[in-house]
Amino acid sequence: MDGPVAVYLAKVYITLKPSVNDPQGQTILGGLRSLGFGTVQSVRAGKYFEVRLDESSESKANAKVKEMCSRLLANPIVEDYRFELSKVT
Amino acid sequence: MDGPVAVYLAKVYITLKPSVNDPQGQTILGGLRSLGFGTVQSVRAGKYFEVRLDESSESKANAKVKEMCSRLLANPIVEDYRFELSKVT
Repeated sequence: MDGPVAVYLAKVYITLKPSVNDPQGQTILGGLRSLGFGTVQSVRAGKYFEVRLDESSESKANAKVKEMCSRLLANPIVEDYRFELSKVT
Repeated sequence: MDGPVAVYLAKVYITLKPSVNDPQGQTILGGLRSLGFGTVQSVRAGKYFEVRLDESSESKANAKVKEMCSRLLANPIVEDYRFELSKVT
């Protein structure tokens, strides 16, 4: 159902697919071990975005964020994405 | 209480402090608008890490991840961090 326009906040998490090599994560793992964190087993690095958008319904906002992820925010060849949507106002 | 060693997964979110300028987020905002997403109001870019570590208790794991964040993963001058901890095994 469409109501008045409201602000939605999408918290978007982008991660490399599990089979994809992650040199940034491996470098951070090495750094943590050098600092004495010997119990660290693995580090995977990803991206996090907070996107605010004006939409008239949660389902429209959901569809828009999905399209943003697949067209710009994530590279679907090597990355997965997920997001949480909440109404701000 | 200390038990046998278990694997903990920390999901770490690093964000720029609200007062800090975010050129990456602004570039992404411009890109989204160029693609026709006219309802987007703002984008803030951050980092996301999945860290696996072996610890004997959740409180120890919590303390370790906190230290990792403040010593290596985040820059406390310009960034905030938060994390969620869960037991994997």
